[in-house]
Amino acid sequence: MLAAGGRVLAEAIYATRSIPPADQAALDGFAVAANATIGASSYNPLLLPLRAISAGDAMPPGTDSVIPLGLGQQTHSGVECVEALAPGENVETQGCVAAPGALLASAGTLMLPARIGMLIGAGLVNVAVVRRPLVRIVVTPGSAAIDSNGPMCRALVHRDGGVTSDILAAGRSRSAVRSAIETEKADIVLVIGGTGPGADDHAAAALAEAGDLAIHGIALRPGETTGLGHTHGNVPAILLPGSPAACFLAYEMLAGRAVRRLGGRDPGLPYRCRTMRTGRKIVSAIGMTEICPVRCATPDLAEPLPSFGETGLMAAAAADGFVIVPEGSEGYPQGAPVTVYLYEGSHIGG
Amino acid sequence: MLAAGGRVLAEAIYATRSIPPADQAALDGFAVAANATIGASSYNPLLLPLRAISAGDAMPPGTDSVIPLGLGQQTHSGVECVEALAPGENVETQGCVAAPGALLASAGTLMLPARIGMLIGAGLVNVAVVRRPLVRIVVTPGSAAIDSNGPMCRALVHRDGGVTSDILAAGRSRSAVRSAIETEKADIVLVIGGTGPGADDHAAAALAEAGDLAIHGIALRPGETTGLGHTHGNVPAILLPGSPAACFLAYEMLAGRAVRRLGGRDPGLPYRCRTMRTGRKIVSAIGMTEICPVRCATPDLAEPLPSFGETGLMAAAAADGFVIVPEGSEGYPQGAPVTVYLYEGSHIGG
Repeated sequence: MLAAGGRVLAEAIYATRSIPPADQAALDGFAVAANATIGASSYNPLLLPLRAISAGDAMPPGTDSVIPLGLGQQTHSGVECVEALAPGENVETQGCVAAPGALLASAGTLMLPARIGMLIGAGLVNVAVVRRPLVRIVVTPGSAAIDSNGPMCRALVHRDGGVTSDILAAGRSRSAVRSAIETEKADIVLVIGGTGPGADDHAAAALAEAGDLAIHGIALRPGETTGLGHTHGNVPAILLPGSPAACFLAYEMLAGRAVRRLGGRDPGLPYRCRTMRTGRKIVSAIGMTEICPVRCATPDLAEPLPSFGETGLMAAAAADGFVIVPEGSEGYPQGAPVTVYLYEGSHIGG
Repeated sequence: MLAAGGRVLAEAIYATRSIPPADQAALDGFAVAANATIGASSYNPLLLPLRAISAGDAMPPGTDSVIPLGLGQQTHSGVECVEALAPGENVETQGCVAAPGALLASAGTLMLPARIGMLIGAGLVNVAVVRRPLVRIVVTPGSAAIDSNGPMCRALVHRDGGVTSDILAAGRSRSAVRSAIETEKADIVLVIGGTGPGADDHAAAALAEAGDLAIHGIALRPGETTGLGHTHGNVPAILLPGSPAACFLAYEMLAGRAVRRLGGRDPGLPYRCRTMRTGRKIVSAIGMTEICPVRCATPDLAEPLPSFGETGLMAAAAADGFVIVPEGSEGYPQGAPVTVYLYEGSHIGG
């Protein structure tokens, strides 16, 4: 059941038995038969030989109610009861939370810790969850000596609930990239690099040969040379630019959505968002979606930082979050309300 | 470096070399020597033998600027240039993002994927991160046949960046619990169950013998019997109630905070939060902190659900989030603004 953590249910789960399975104490106190408390008051405390009981414990035979801790005074010779109880008082009856057959969790429910606990408590041992998608990452090393895109995308895929096999470093040639796309079993293939107009950029041609290149070039800046298609085996393939900031943004805006959807998760961006005001004007080109990194000067004020185009991944590293400027917008004036997607932590929210 | 994902930097990271390491193309286009474009215009296009270049590629020798893709028309015999460029145009010069010695990331920075990519791209291979805290979970099986608290707490610890060894099922006796607390090496110990007033509840006495019981009983409902202290070896120990909802809430309000802090993370609750209005009155007892589960009827309206006291973990399983009613409050009237902590997804926010 622990392995289900962070995944989503493939099907609805119904109670196989009553919850709780038997009458149980609703709070810490002393289990008692209600009719033994008749006549008890602070003027007439009754001394009863009672057993202490914890919330959630099954009611002992012969008891039907619970004196709360604060209302029963334990003495050497028993518990002084100063209030009469009604039968069933402070007791959760068998099945009061769920009867057998009741819906416990819908298909698509994310298995958060409390839900794991609830289902185990309901007697379930195994649940069917949506398989984590297997994401194949192919890098095509370009002029840069170090590949930072592969490890970055791997971390992104893990965040989004996918699993990765080893990063495959294909050669730069069209045939090498094509064969890397073709050979691998996966639920989705990410090819990084070789998407541009350079003489040794062959990712698009390789995907066209290995299946179908549906789109090459999108209105995202940086990220213009992103491509989409699928292999002959009908596995979705996404071509991510080799420039690190473009690779990151194309993953965030396109590939991540696909990975999350394949795993049954909410495909939306996995960031908290909040409405803030812009600390300065945000300028963006009409016709292109741009991602503007911002720093949260106060919980309400988003200060634009130098763009991904200017400082690459340093923009994401330095930012508290980002604003999406859609392709139809020229940006926002100072003080305008914008939706800020926050990279981390809840300490900024509130 | 991938292993650093989700952890926080133990120390600040400084650039060991220039970023970028050499002059590079700022966008996709054609690398050119600017003085070869002098006089170019749409009336006087110059046909130049140019190399296509992708954003991020190093500038080839003899070139100092980049003609954007849209402004250079590729023909069979070369590229038609219709605009003169200034030297350095569309080129990111060596070190323009960071000079050697510049601060790249502060101590305490959470290693998100883009930051991993940025640091690898900056030539860093290893970074020092705060160790994941080792959390020892001890369960003391009570009357309930199935232990759901251990797996739930394990999932919670993993969420909070901790690691767990096998869940240790101690006996219910004081000596068994004490010996479980004493023997284990860990950064923090969670003892689940046996915190109540029952005859076989010995967690508090066991911790008092195994070290120091600083607090037993807190103003949290459910969760009243939570305890805090430390072992003789000065390892923090938290006693969580065995009732699943109380165990969950005591973890959330106390233990999780400690686990996150030990791992260098933000100790605050790891939930997005937003201000919403209450759909109905929320009633709470003065003197106790209560956690009220809510369903988000609209992005702005929080409908209270049956409490954790009434339906146990089912409350968390059915809820979209929760409201914390502090001990000094009697609750909130209908329509009052409240801070809602959201359990999942960003689709509710916006």
